[in-house]
Amino acid sequence: MPIKAARVYHDGKLVRELGADEAIPEDCDEGDFFWLGLYEPTPGELAAIAKRFGLHPLAVEDALKANQLPKVEAYGDQLFVITRTANLDGDTIQPGETAFFLGPHFFVSVRHGSARTHTDVRARLETLPAKLAHGPDYVLYAILDFIVDGYFPVIDAIEDRLLLVEDSVMDTPLDAAEIRHLYAQRHEIIRFQRFVGMMKEVANSLATDDDLPNIDAAVRPFFRDIWDHVQRAEFRLSGLRDIAASVIETNGMLEQQRQGVITRQLAAWAAILAVPTAIAGIYGMNFEHMPELGWTFGYPLIVGAMATICAGLYWRFKSIGWL
Amino acid sequence: MPIKAARVYHDGKLVRELGADEAIPEDCDEGDFFWLGLYEPTPGELAAIAKRFGLHPLAVEDALKANQLPKVEAYGDQLFVITRTANLDGDTIQPGETAFFLGPHFFVSVRHGSARTHTDVRARLETLPAKLAHGPDYVLYAILDFIVDGYFPVIDAIEDRLLLVEDSVMDTPLDAAEIRHLYAQRHEIIRFQRFVGMMKEVANSLATDDDLPNIDAAVRPFFRDIWDHVQRAEFRLSGLRDIAASVIETNGMLEQQRQGVITRQLAAWAAILAVPTAIAGIYGMNFEHMPELGWTFGYPLIVGAMATICAGLYWRFKSIGWL
Amino acid sequence: MPIKAARVYHDGKLVRELGADEAIPEDCDEGDFFWLGLYEPTPGELAAIAKRFGLHPLAVEDALKANQLPKVEAYGDQLFVITRTANLDGDTIQPGETAFFLGPHFFVSVRHGSARTHTDVRARLETLPAKLAHGPDYVLYAILDFIVDGYFPVIDAIEDRLLLVEDSVMDTPLDAAEIRHLYAQRHEIIRFQRFVGMMKEVANSLATDDDLPNIDAAVRPFFRDIWDHVQRAEFRLSGLRDIAASVIETNGMLEQQRQGVITRQLAAWAAILAVPTAIAGIYGMNFEHMPELGWTFGYPLIVGAMATICAGLYWRFKSIGWL
Amino acid sequence: MPIKAARVYHDGKLVRELGADEAIPEDCDEGDFFWLGLYEPTPGELAAIAKRFGLHPLAVEDALKANQLPKVEAYGDQLFVITRTANLDGDTIQPGETAFFLGPHFFVSVRHGSARTHTDVRARLETLPAKLAHGPDYVLYAILDFIVDGYFPVIDAIEDRLLLVEDSVMDTPLDAAEIRHLYAQRHEIIRFQRFVGMMKEVANSLATDDDLPNIDAAVRPFFRDIWDHVQRAEFRLSGLRDIAASVIETNGMLEQQRQGVITRQLAAWAAILAVPTAIAGIYGMNFEHMPELGWTFGYPLIVGAMATICAGLYWRFKSIGWL
Amino acid sequence: MPIKAARVYHDGKLVRELGADEAIPEDCDEGDFFWLGLYEPTPGELAAIAKRFGLHPLAVEDALKANQLPKVEAYGDQLFVITRTANLDGDTIQPGETAFFLGPHFFVSVRHGSARTHTDVRARLETLPAKLAHGPDYVLYAILDFIVDGYFPVIDAIEDRLLLVEDSVMDTPLDAAEIRHLYAQRHEIIRFQRFVGMMKEVANSLATDDDLPNIDAAVRPFFRDIWDHVQRAEFRLSGLRDIAASVIETNGMLEQQRQGVITRQLAAWAAILAVPTAIAGIYGMNFEHMPELGWTFGYPLIVGAMATICAGLYWRFKSIGWL
Ligand SMILES: [Mg+2]
Ligand SMILES: [Mg+2]
Ligand SMILES: [Mg+2]
Ligand SMILES: [Mg+2]
Ligand SMILES: [Mg+2]
Ligand SMILES: [Mg+2]
Ligand SMILES: [Mg+2]
Ligand SMILES: [Mg+2]
Ligand SMILES: [Mg+2]
Ligand SMILES: [Mg+2]
Ligand SMILES: [Mg+2]
Ligand SMILES: [Mg+2]
Ligand SMILES: [Mg+2]
Ligand SMILES: [Mg+2]
Ligand SMILES: [Mg+2]
Ligand SMILES: [Mg+2]
Ligand SMILES: [Mg+2]
Ligand SMILES: [Mg+2]
Ligand SMILES: [Mg+2]
Ligand SMILES: [Mg+2]
Ligand SMILES: [Mg+2]
Ligand SMILES: [Mg+2]
Ligand SMILES: [Mg+2]
Ligand SMILES: [Mg+2]
Ligand SMILES: [Mg+2]
Ligand SMILES: [Mg+2]
Ligand SMILES: [Mg+2]
Ligand SMILES: [Mg+2]
Ligand SMILES: [Mg+2]
Ligand SMILES: [Mg+2]
Ligand SMILES: [Mg+2]
Repeated sequence: MPIKAARVYHDGKLVRELGADEAIPEDCDEGDFFWLGLYEPTPGELAAIAKRFGLHPLAVEDALKANQLPKVEAYGDQLFVITRTANLDGDTIQPGETAFFLGPHFFVSVRHGSARTHTDVRARLETLPAKLAHGPDYVLYAILDFIVDGYFPVIDAIEDRLLLVEDSVMDTPLDAAEIRHLYAQRHEIIRFQRFVGMMKEVANSLATDDDLPNIDAAVRPFFRDIWDHVQRAEFRLSGLRDIAASVIETNGMLEQQRQGVITRQLAAWAAILAVPTAIAGIYGMNFEHMPELGWTFGYPLIVGAMATICAGLYWRFKSIGWL
Repeated sequence: MPIKAARVYHDGKLVRELGADEAIPEDCDEGDFFWLGLYEPTPGELAAIAKRFGLHPLAVEDALKANQLPKVEAYGDQLFVITRTANLDGDTIQPGETAFFLGPHFFVSVRHGSARTHTDVRARLETLPAKLAHGPDYVLYAILDFIVDGYFPVIDAIEDRLLLVEDSVMDTPLDAAEIRHLYAQRHEIIRFQRFVGMMKEVANSLATDDDLPNIDAAVRPFFRDIWDHVQRAEFRLSGLRDIAASVIETNGMLEQQRQGVITRQLAAWAAILAVPTAIAGIYGMNFEHMPELGWTFGYPLIVGAMATICAGLYWRFKSIGWL
Repeated sequence: MPIKAARVYHDGKLVRELGADEAIPEDCDEGDFFWLGLYEPTPGELAAIAKRFGLHPLAVEDALKANQLPKVEAYGDQLFVITRTANLDGDTIQPGETAFFLGPHFFVSVRHGSARTHTDVRARLETLPAKLAHGPDYVLYAILDFIVDGYFPVIDAIEDRLLLVEDSVMDTPLDAAEIRHLYAQRHEIIRFQRFVGMMKEVANSLATDDDLPNIDAAVRPFFRDIWDHVQRAEFRLSGLRDIAASVIETNGMLEQQRQGVITRQLAAWAAILAVPTAIAGIYGMNFEHMPELGWTFGYPLIVGAMATICAGLYWRFKSIGWL
Repeated sequence: MPIKAARVYHDGKLVRELGADEAIPEDCDEGDFFWLGLYEPTPGELAAIAKRFGLHPLAVEDALKANQLPKVEAYGDQLFVITRTANLDGDTIQPGETAFFLGPHFFVSVRHGSARTHTDVRARLETLPAKLAHGPDYVLYAILDFIVDGYFPVIDAIEDRLLLVEDSVMDTPLDAAEIRHLYAQRHEIIRFQRFVGMMKEVANSLATDDDLPNIDAAVRPFFRDIWDHVQRAEFRLSGLRDIAASVIETNGMLEQQRQGVITRQLAAWAAILAVPTAIAGIYGMNFEHMPELGWTFGYPLIVGAMATICAGLYWRFKSIGWL
Repeated sequence: MPIKAARVYHDGKLVRELGADEAIPEDCDEGDFFWLGLYEPTPGELAAIAKRFGLHPLAVEDALKANQLPKVEAYGDQLFVITRTANLDGDTIQPGETAFFLGPHFFVSVRHGSARTHTDVRARLETLPAKLAHGPDYVLYAILDFIVDGYFPVIDAIEDRLLLVEDSVMDTPLDAAEIRHLYAQRHEIIRFQRFVGMMKEVANSLATDDDLPNIDAAVRPFFRDIWDHVQRAEFRLSGLRDIAASVIETNGMLEQQRQGVITRQLAAWAAILAVPTAIAGIYGMNFEHMPELGWTFGYPLIVGAMATICAGLYWRFKSIGWL
């Protein structure tokens, strides 16, 4: 059953919970307020609700299909909002999206993907009838607050992983697996950042647009607070993106530096070892007339000369920092 | 014949199809509406229609020449719109462009390049006279929706190809052919992204500009929906561009990492093998007085020394991670 | 003589051509219109005209000195416009600039650098008295159209050259001369792009600014068309810039890939050849007691062992893709 | 005790200091003004003050939790401001943040992290009753001025460190430790720059927004001066960021240049030394019939030939700049 | 004495020069106008003038301290302007800044750093009483024009130096000294560009802001001309920055291309020389039973084989472009 909860309130106080198969009553008094929570409904299930509340077909279509982008849209006296959610399920990030329909007397949420139900938010609000009496705008605020609060553990988790890589890059060059992991992380940050940017626009529009139906001026400072929290999420994500870019650059620079060091060492040792090889090659030639070969101290003399030249070169390379 | 279809409607209901060579009737009642679909017309063919409907010469010129950029322009009480299309023909992407003239009583489309006719859209609309009775604005919406829906299979195809390259880069360095292919893909994405950006402006202008002739307020939410879908196309393209950039960077970084590994291995083996070569060179010299050469165990001793030094170096390089 | 042409029109019809040394008549009737075309005039030559038409000293100064940037400026009831031209003279791009003064009864153009006279534009307009009767705004449109049309052959030429380099980069690494040429091309594109960007602002201001003197509302759609064409030029230049950047990046990536391949090949062959060298060195030592040297099949055995090891290494490197 | 100071003023003159445990008096005359300074208060401590002055719960929440971003917010007739501080404590940069509540008759500051008390600012203001009589806006200005003045020693310190690295990079390639340090510095600059950007918005809003409660027009030029100083801080930070980027790029380019030099030297010496090795190898072969071996001057001839070829190659490489 | 000149004008005509120690007269008629030029005054010296003319303390503070950024600020009926100067003193660029106070009856300039006095501007203006009668706005224009004209020789000098490096990079890789120089140049361009950007804002604000005190509408076109010249300076600087970036990129790409060429050459020669070395090593072994050693033509045969293989390899590498 996609309807997770359907309750009727009057002046902020819970009247009753609708049955699983019960139709939504057609008539509704001044202080009445319906709050419906749906999870991945089928077109047919949503159609009944759309008919009862007069939801706009374009909005219904968007609420049914996943992969929508965050937005706020007015349809006559109704408001339609799409948000993106993200929360941590153990070690993996779970993306989701939730759509909201706001009318003068109803609030309908349609969740996709996200495993976090709104049960706790609802329970807390039911203890605050004065707040609930505000109607759909305050409910929207409470759920947006809940959604945005869910971003921070995700950001913390990404940060923790990234700082591990940052430490590692300083000691040894990243291996191929770490490089792949790093790019995957950065990808995730960029995608998250874009959704957060759009959520900021949603919050901004709710906090500042006078013309939105069902959003009272008294509730607007609360949406400004949402904006504020989203901005903080964006700020932290942009810092993480900087770190990721920095780690990539640092690794490149350190790898270049390490190769520079090895190139110099390699060149130095090649030069040092080429000397005895060349000299030995010469005295390995089979000419009949090579006077040095007959000298009694020819051998120690030549080996001594080799050692002296090698030591001299070694000292030379040491002093210019190649070894 | 460039005129693919020319039909007359009254209050949203089809009256009749004009004959291939029939002139467009000069007189037209209040509820009458002409819908003409042209494919790559010659200047002469369009001139007759332009004369009948009083189309502006600058707009006619733009509709005739290909390679225009998407835009919305008002000429008096008429509206002129240019769009870019893209659809998949087997494996290749087929670009095209379509221009639209909207008057109070007519809708004229001029297609270039695109093989997708509007036949299906038209057939569906003819089953909905209440919609068709809206006139040219609703027809424009239906065709824009059809055009923008055509973007997504193209984006899916590009994504599929790109994800193949992304997998491949993680295992082996890209070869020259893959590098070329990758750059070609990225080029295609960038070009597509630009057109989509301009299409977003077209949809935005149709959804928000109060002053456009022949666009009624009631139809504007539909253009906002078009905007929304175009934005989703743009969002996905920008993600694909990120992936392409990421693949390029990752490949560069992995190639650098691989060269670092090989440089270190090469240096280690060069050092290890230089030792027996140098020692063998020395004992290959032809000095008469080299006492070691006469020792009974000189040969195994020296070979043992070589092996010991090589093993020591090998262990050393192994422990610092060069081998 | 810097005055290329000076003609008087009445109600759009040519009255007469002023003589080379003839002063501009002081009096002028309602339908009269002077069109003067100057080419690199001296300060003195322009001063006489400035005095006659009351041109602003700052505008005159700008028209005399070359290297101005495109702009539109109002001085009282007069309009001053600076444009940049570019056309192809054989194989080389010829930059130029042209300034325009527009008053209620006159149109003065001052060309610098450009070899393209306005003779053809003028001749065509003289056949359309109804257009010419619009006065200076329509003349400005006609000449701007002529200038902007001149951009496209230049862009085509740059594109042709660039596509040659793009093909070449895919086969062999760019040599030094091609690298230099590529950077020079990109430089040219960037500079052109900037002028075109300013030209777009000029066209935009002429098409949308209500307050510009001597620009009638009826002519404004024509300037919007100019804007449109300039935008297309900008669009193509930005595409060319992308191609140039792409070629540079591709070349870098292919060069890196090629060096990776060679590094691996070099390392493999160095390893393969080090084996016989080391073994031969050992059996080239002059120890008296080396039993293998006395074996009848010692030589073929050792050479066989060398060949086996080399073949094994070769096979190994082949299988990991280094050879 | 988190309350660092709580004083009552009348018409800008100090009336008395409230006791540590004294409640804030409920009644307040026209010229009365309360100035409270808090340091990291607990929720309970701030709640009492919030109740007395009617502070908005959302603002109180922000003032209690650290890691807020700079902002200006109006709540009814009250103003809420968050700022970021940075000062130098010996060698390390100490970040902090301070929140301000401004009402018609009170000014409450809540500091987090920062060790710099406002004691000196307060003492100086108490000597200027005419200024203090302005009320909370002037106090806000004085403290913002104090906070922004604190940025400059921090910027000076970063600049000093960076210029040391810049000098060093010109002489020798950066080693791994210096690379790490450089990236850490750049990170710090980027983070600082972002806060400063937000502080500029805070100052701008205080200087230009007519609708902010408790900010009189007469004090606005002082906030413009704050803006000005913040802009100077931003300007210098952006210069430092350029230097850091420049050092990184220069180091990369110099390292590449050095490796180019070494690659050429290595290639040259490898070529020079390969010649005697190859020739000596040939005359080290044990063929029975090698006539040169029997020549009296064969040995000096061959050694002379080796020397000549090596010298020739050396000269050749010298002349093309490889050695 | 910091006061370089203090003169009184009436209706644009010079009345008299004030003595070095003479106080500025307190009374002033309708057409009177004071023009004071100061060079790096002490606080005391400026305080006297500030008192006489009622200058705002914040503006005075800015005028005294160096390192301000260009800006325009209104204080009541007075205007305060800060500008940055740059001029060439032999080969070095001399930065400076100048502040201006404009009141209805006075113009005060305060120069820092710059060695260029305003003597010539003043002398020229004194010959044009009709212009000087405009008052402080025209004087400000004349001096801004003088300051901005000073930018161009500096830009020319930077361009000359940069073009030398650009030529050089095409022939040989940049050495370390040239790399350092190039980065220093680029740094200078970036800093200059930023000041020029702020100067453009200053000119724009003087040319378009209706509300600035002491700037008459009649003088505004002159400030638009200043804007125009500043824009040209910015345009050229941005071109220079492109060149600098291009030189850096080209050098990197050419260095990479050169190393590619050398890597291929090195690999080819290593392969060619490895052949005789390996063969000679084999025939240098001391096995008793090596039949080839006894052949009469063994030696020439083997040397011929070596030469043939080497020539074959040489031809092979030549044909694939490695040699
Ligand atoms: Mg939709
Ligand atoms: Mg949106
Ligand atoms: Mg929250
Ligand atoms: Mg979004
Ligand atoms: Mg908030
Ligand atoms: Mg904001
Ligand atoms: Mg950061
Ligand atoms: Mg056109
Ligand atoms: Mg659709
Ligand atoms: Mg387009
Ligand atoms: Mg647009
Ligand atoms: Mg929509
Ligand atoms: Mg992405
Ligand atoms: Mg000028
Ligand atoms: Mg301009
Ligand atoms: Mg044209
Ligand atoms: Mg524009
Ligand atoms: Mg157009
Ligand atoms: Mg492209
Ligand atoms: Mg690079
Ligand atoms: Mg908050
Ligand atoms: Mg200060
Ligand atoms: Mg802002
Ligand atoms: Mg100041
Ligand atoms: Mg800088
Ligand atoms: Mg300043
Ligand atoms: Mg400024
Ligand atoms: Mg000038
Ligand atoms: Mg500006
Ligand atoms: Mg001008
Ligand atoms: Mg350039």
